[in-house]
Amino acid sequence: MAVDIATRVFNHSFRIDPIVRTLLDTDFYKLLMAQLIWKKHYETRATFSLINRSRHVRLADMIDQRELTEQLDHVRTLRFAKNELIWLAGNTFYGVKQIFQPEFLDWLAEFRLPDYELTTRDGQFELRFEGPWRETSLWEVPALSILNELRSRAAMRRMNRFELDVLYARAKAKLWDKVERLRVLQQEGPLILADFGTRRRHGFLWQRWCVEALQEGIGASLIGTSNVKHAMDLGLEAIGTNAHELPMVYAALAPDDAALAAAPYRVLEDWAQMYGGNLLVFLPDAFGTPAFLANAPDWMASWKGARPDSMPPIEGSELILDWWRRHGQDTREKLIILSDGMTIDSIERSVRRLRAEVTVSIGWGTDLTNDFAGCVPKGSDTDLRALQLVCKVTETNGRPAVKLSDNPEKASGPPAEIARYRRVFAAPKGAPTLTAPA
Amino acid sequence: MAVDIATRVFNHSFRIDPIVRTLLDTDFYKLLMAQLIWKKHYETRATFSLINRSRHVRLADMIDQRELTEQLDHVRTLRFAKNELIWLAGNTFYGVKQIFQPEFLDWLAEFRLPDYELTTRDGQFELRFEGPWRETSLWEVPALSILNELRSRAAMRRMNRFELDVLYARAKAKLWDKVERLRVLQQEGPLILADFGTRRRHGFLWQRWCVEALQEGIGASLIGTSNVKHAMDLGLEAIGTNAHELPMVYAALAPDDAALAAAPYRVLEDWAQMYGGNLLVFLPDAFGTPAFLANAPDWMASWKGARPDSMPPIEGSELILDWWRRHGQDTREKLIILSDGMTIDSIERSVRRLRAEVTVSIGWGTDLTNDFAGCVPKGSDTDLRALQLVCKVTETNGRPAVKLSDNPEKASGPPAEIARYRRVFAAPKGAPTLTAPA
Repeated sequence: MAVDIATRVFNHSFRIDPIVRTLLDTDFYKLLMAQLIWKKHYETRATFSLINRSRHVRLADMIDQRELTEQLDHVRTLRFAKNELIWLAGNTFYGVKQIFQPEFLDWLAEFRLPDYELTTRDGQFELRFEGPWRETSLWEVPALSILNELRSRAAMRRMNRFELDVLYARAKAKLWDKVERLRVLQQEGPLILADFGTRRRHGFLWQRWCVEALQEGIGASLIGTSNVKHAMDLGLEAIGTNAHELPMVYAALAPDDAALAAAPYRVLEDWAQMYGGNLLVFLPDAFGTPAFLANAPDWMASWKGARPDSMPPIEGSELILDWWRRHGQDTREKLIILSDGMTIDSIERSVRRLRAEVTVSIGWGTDLTNDFAGCVPKGSDTDLRALQLVCKVTETNGRPAVKLSDNPEKASGPPAEIARYRRVFAAPKGAPTLTAPA
Repeated sequence: MAVDIATRVFNHSFRIDPIVRTLLDTDFYKLLMAQLIWKKHYETRATFSLINRSRHVRLADMIDQRELTEQLDHVRTLRFAKNELIWLAGNTFYGVKQIFQPEFLDWLAEFRLPDYELTTRDGQFELRFEGPWRETSLWEVPALSILNELRSRAAMRRMNRFELDVLYARAKAKLWDKVERLRVLQQEGPLILADFGTRRRHGFLWQRWCVEALQEGIGASLIGTSNVKHAMDLGLEAIGTNAHELPMVYAALAPDDAALAAAPYRVLEDWAQMYGGNLLVFLPDAFGTPAFLANAPDWMASWKGARPDSMPPIEGSELILDWWRRHGQDTREKLIILSDGMTIDSIERSVRRLRAEVTVSIGWGTDLTNDFAGCVPKGSDTDLRALQLVCKVTETNGRPAVKLSDNPEKASGPPAEIARYRRVFAAPKGAPTLTAPA
């Protein structure tokens, strides 16, 4: 076989193999939220911190700190490219033209990621991003995808060419088996699904393959991807709305308990001033879904949908469906987005259970873009199993940020503040609640 | 991504994509037999004919006759290359130096495949090779691998780039699952296995991958491959001994019934004059194993091994083991080669059952190199399932060639001759026989 010498030399001369190749390689909701933060909280400061919920995995023992630094530094050299900004300006998102204001895009054109603090302690990386919220917020996704891909690379460094071939063959076969189950689900009734797998993906190119597999396998049932770069390159819709950082920062900045209790609804008011239609999706679980629904203003009933994100999907959805019904809404006009650790099994169960009552949209994450369990041809697959790694807002303008969620394992913040939030966000007596703990 | 224009233009300018790229892409036993035929039957003529035992598959409707002609014509342009002849001359086969005589290699250097006759009738190809046995014999393997690969190509022409990607990923994953079962078998005790999958392979490159998978997965338990080209390129032993065409031609040329009954042992005498050691492997089933063993000369007991090829593997082996024991042989010094439609299931069963008593060597064919069942991502896999396609000697010096085998479905020849052979090769009363039909 003829060797193309130029290609070979070029391939062997990379200084690094970048994980994040463009600032567009992020989740779409980050850009929607960035515009809100830029517009309404330009001066607010926020610190994001890496949290490894899989404490037993000593990340800093697997990943070379110098490699991590190189990747983080590389992302800091990136700017949004001209063609990317044109695409953001000229594209229609959620049926809306010019969803991004020209002044915001001007700001984006100058944007680069702020500095970071990285230290190692007890086998874990301590990685913090301090600065204006509008800037630090955009670190979350690249930081997570870098850490996850560096870990994959470390695990695969032990494998030879042939083992890698088998590894990816098995991962492809495994994903296609899931796609075939989705095709069955699609034949039975409506199926709506989007890729939400950027942050915990095995790798950038692997995520691309997974999205292409869905395009090939379920066609129009794939409504898009949360990843803006993949959306642009593959001609897909960019999907996403908002995340917990909004209620967490609003809550942390609240001057007293009454303002704290009102904070989640202040987020919705601000959101509705900027976005409409299918982007009016509320996230009910930042401080517990039962209280959120019990105290919600009636006007929230007009919103299009909800994204229950820490209860078991069917139970979480039922609470919201009940709330809509009590507010005189036709649930068949509403949208439920399920995106908390969905697997092919829970997708099947949830879609089959719920789709007659409501439009169910699946945000498929780790089980789509990072399922290599059982795929390693020789030896253990432990080091390729996805981690519970998050990058959360921990502080804003000097005040601690808190999350309760419906799942106690996902609570974060100082214990005293968690206790205060639990008191403020206690569900009123008689409010519907979970039948069993998550 | 940069496009290498020269490579692209080159790749798109092939007149045909050849299936057989060298005359060395054949089974090793064909060369051993060719030397015997060249030496002892230089003037004997033999006709080989294609037989599709899977009659329901209308091959000529799937494969374009022009494409088949191009591939067959291409093989006729090939000669053994200088480096290939040097490798055949300089290599050690079965521990023997210069197994091929210099005069035979001189003949091979001039060799090209003789002409063929191709017609189409009722959806089937009628493909015949007439001429000197020493030449027509060498058509069998390329003819079969061409037909099988053309059929694979026809089936895959309907698939897009992505479907092909999934197809091969699944086939790789499926094979590696088998390799993992072999690795378990290997940990339990001796395992000896060779690739015998040339003639019914999915394709040349796929066979290469399968052999490499075995090298990677079971290491020294892979004693080699029947494919001479793969053996040379991958640094493996070329494996194989002899086939049914020898007793079939010897039998057809026998002038009377007594000579017919003696023909199978005449083959062994001639073989032993040319080859020794581990190449002394008899094929007992051409006209039925029970009669072959019952009438065998005592000196056959000194031969190293046997290749039962049409009985269920354990039963066929037991008949031979019993014969060796009755002839005072220590079966643990003997070799049984199992090569008739072996699957991972029957490999496990046979090896576990037999390896304490005898050295068991597996010749793994179609289940290794052409198992795409369940691998097609969309639609039916029928057109990628392996066929029962053979290319058999049907005539020699104007007389019909006959095969009975232990499996009635594999019998071939004119009915009157089959009846005569059945009479001549009837097992004597009291001879051990099969407990159940195959």
